[in-house]
Amino acid sequence: MLTSLSVANFLDEIASNSPAPGGGSASALAASLGAALASMVCRLTIGKKKYADIQIEMDNTLKQAEDLRAKLNAIIDEDTAAFSKVMAAYGLPKETEEQKIKRTAEIQEAIKTATLIPLKLMGLCIEAMKLVKIIIEKGNHNSLSDAGVAALMLHAGCEGAALNVKINLGSLSDANFVAQTKMKVEQYCSSLETFTSDILASVNKNLA
Amino acid sequence: MLTSLSVANFLDEIASNSPAPGGGSASALAASLGAALASMVCRLTIGKKKYADIQIEMDNTLKQAEDLRAKLNAIIDEDTAAFSKVMAAYGLPKETEEQKIKRTAEIQEAIKTATLIPLKLMGLCIEAMKLVKIIIEKGNHNSLSDAGVAALMLHAGCEGAALNVKINLGSLSDANFVAQTKMKVEQYCSSLETFTSDILASVNKNLA
Repeated sequence: MLTSLSVANFLDEIASNSPAPGGGSASALAASLGAALASMVCRLTIGKKKYADIQIEMDNTLKQAEDLRAKLNAIIDEDTAAFSKVMAAYGLPKETEEQKIKRTAEIQEAIKTATLIPLKLMGLCIEAMKLVKIIIEKGNHNSLSDAGVAALMLHAGCEGAALNVKINLGSLSDANFVAQTKMKVEQYCSSLETFTSDILASVNKNLA
Repeated sequence: MLTSLSVANFLDEIASNSPAPGGGSASALAASLGAALASMVCRLTIGKKKYADIQIEMDNTLKQAEDLRAKLNAIIDEDTAAFSKVMAAYGLPKETEEQKIKRTAEIQEAIKTATLIPLKLMGLCIEAMKLVKIIIEKGNHNSLSDAGVAALMLHAGCEGAALNVKINLGSLSDANFVAQTKMKVEQYCSSLETFTSDILASVNKNLA
């Protein structure tokens, strides 16, 4: 598992001359860093007298952040596994007509799966952004920059996932799937920009 | 060392109820992911017939990307160490007048160091962005989304570092240092936005 590697070795794996792990797993890790920072700010808020009136909300936010973090962590490996399946499908024999048909179908199926994973990542990033918004408004003010970094990490993870969806869509022949997926990406990106600009405006105003 | 931890344990450390590692080390890791992806695309370009005429430039770009990656990796630990020194300075005795003066001076010195580290991170992100620009223009076209993710990671790392500089500046009394640092942050942010928007426009145009 990639998440069992040391941080230094994971970075070496990314930097190596193999296309996986690449931008997909990196995007998932960035998103996971965002969720982890959100959890940290919750924990630095819970138990503090000054924030006593929002303990239940922060407990609940922390629970959701940790749940999302586990899902985002899993995607670090899922993305690379899906990419490997695409590569394996391209490697199938293509000598007979039957083989060619089977190979094309397997490639298409593998790319669809490899597309749905970053799409799922995008959705999880938006969910995590909702938590960061609560944390920015109500969480420990001393950790404001950490909450801002959480938003930046989720933004990079979500936009990175969008690029991975887009590059895959270019190889898919199912026009319906392509159109529906494009629409979902646009919706996620639009939602993402609203969250990110709101959150960063609020952080920067408070840090100025 | 934080980079010796497994990815999963590093994320747990971020998410824990200790303020360090936090947004500073997370920003450095995001930037390091950006440099690692830049190196990967260089390596996926070098040795390919189609890109034979830019081998020397890609070799050179890879060398620079790996040099930057090593520096960015180091900041993951440096940032947390600097934060720990700030905390240690706040913990100094403050009973006598002499102790108070010494404590204040040590806090100011520690915060200055903790400010210069994310400022260095910003500069390194801009250097890495210059490499990503070359890679987007000339590198392996199949890795275009990875190069785009590299830019997104460097953007998040650089903006995250800016938030860390800003939150520290609020605690510093050296007006000259504060003014000069603010100016540098603005210059870096302006440069960053130009690179990021150029690179992502080019990537999105090519993926469309």
